[in-house]
Amino acid sequence: MPSIDVCYSPELLHLYNLKGKVAVVVDVLRATSSMVTAFAHGIEKIIPVSTLDDCQNLKQAGFLTAAERDGRKAEGFDLGNSPFSYMDASIQGKTLVMTTTNGTHAIRLSVAADKVLAGAFLNIGKVAEFVAAEGKDVVVVCAGWKGDFNLEDTLFAGALAERLKDSFAPANDSTLAAQHLYRLAKPDVMGFLANSSHVKRLQNLNITDDIIYCLQEDVYDVVPVLAGDCLVPLNKAAAK
Amino acid sequence: MPSIDVCYSPELLHLYNLKGKVAVVVDVLRATSSMVTAFAHGIEKIIPVSTLDDCQNLKQAGFLTAAERDGRKAEGFDLGNSPFSYMDASIQGKTLVMTTTNGTHAIRLSVAADKVLAGAFLNIGKVAEFVAAEGKDVVVVCAGWKGDFNLEDTLFAGALAERLKDSFAPANDSTLAAQHLYRLAKPDVMGFLANSSHVKRLQNLNITDDIIYCLQEDVYDVVPVLAGDCLVPLNKAAAK
Repeated sequence: MPSIDVCYSPELLHLYNLKGKVAVVVDVLRATSSMVTAFAHGIEKIIPVSTLDDCQNLKQAGFLTAAERDGRKAEGFDLGNSPFSYMDASIQGKTLVMTTTNGTHAIRLSVAADKVLAGAFLNIGKVAEFVAAEGKDVVVVCAGWKGDFNLEDTLFAGALAERLKDSFAPANDSTLAAQHLYRLAKPDVMGFLANSSHVKRLQNLNITDDIIYCLQEDVYDVVPVLAGDCLVPLNKAAAK
Repeated sequence: MPSIDVCYSPELLHLYNLKGKVAVVVDVLRATSSMVTAFAHGIEKIIPVSTLDDCQNLKQAGFLTAAERDGRKAEGFDLGNSPFSYMDASIQGKTLVMTTTNGTHAIRLSVAADKVLAGAFLNIGKVAEFVAAEGKDVVVVCAGWKGDFNLEDTLFAGALAERLKDSFAPANDSTLAAQHLYRLAKPDVMGFLANSSHVKRLQNLNITDDIIYCLQEDVYDVVPVLAGDCLVPLNKAAAK
């Protein structure tokens, strides 16, 4: 039986052997939720970059850009990190260059994996379906917050492990803990997260609507997958 | 109100500012449980060292030594990491040099803190009493397993946060998660840990008795505290 492991932070990723495995990178609030939303609304490619400088360079080359730091849209870019800003017909068919505090960096660090997916509650069912069909070991890479553990990404990891529990074994204590926490949180995920650090941080920025939106399960069927330097929707990657 | 934070792994410790705080280092299975047991049975000092070489050098200088790697007693040293081996009158008044896979290293990494304590379920009540009296911010440093998260140290962190909840605020998501997990586990901690990685690892080594022993709360009143390079019992450190 393949296994599902959970890495709580990019700072711990060197302890995980991703080779031959599927990495599901998650940054629920809000990078991977925004990516899923963007693809569902017609974006063609997303180039995740780690630094504002890389993003700025690609803006000058003519790309549509999105940049967020500390929960806020960074100055001088086209878009920020709110999923609602990707629900716009003007983004259709475009390539987006994106940098966020945690999520895009986590994707770049996961390239050793056989496949790198962007997971969120919004597309969790389709992610589960894809990794089950692959049948390889899975590592959920939580983007965390500036290198440290966070609850919302851990809940996603637990939710994915729960969906896969009949065909994937927990690899480690981090998977078991994530499953316990998700089972506790499931009846009221928003209430469970009310005291969490990042939810409090975002509520201070008046973006409660973003949080409620990002915690919805199975809204979209799209699975962003890394192909070279770009994320593309899974069906396009497979058709290549 | 002071805060209680939880660092899930020594690999994340660079993200925590320990200055002016009390670090409670925990390696439930079994380093800090053995240390507490050793002091309760008359050991005078423990010198925690990170490497087998350091331990060997101090053995040659005439010290009593304890060494464990991967759950087993390392060859060529006097003692291993079973708390039962410290219940012997022959250790009274001696200085012990100790190296373990995770715990002693975590202690050495925590020296930036104002005070460094060794915590275990065995002495949790006395640890809680001491840190409450100090009134400073607390960081629980989980020794983890080879750099990664483990459940048993997290449960200790949650148990300590629960004991302190009226006077210490959770600093971060890691504290909240640890508290949730401890509340879930509390009715049957051994059962909760039955599928955890390290418990399975130790059960394979036939040391279930050690595990049952280490999960008992409030057996001893001793609190080991780092004074220079040595751990000493708190009352001796205070009397200096």
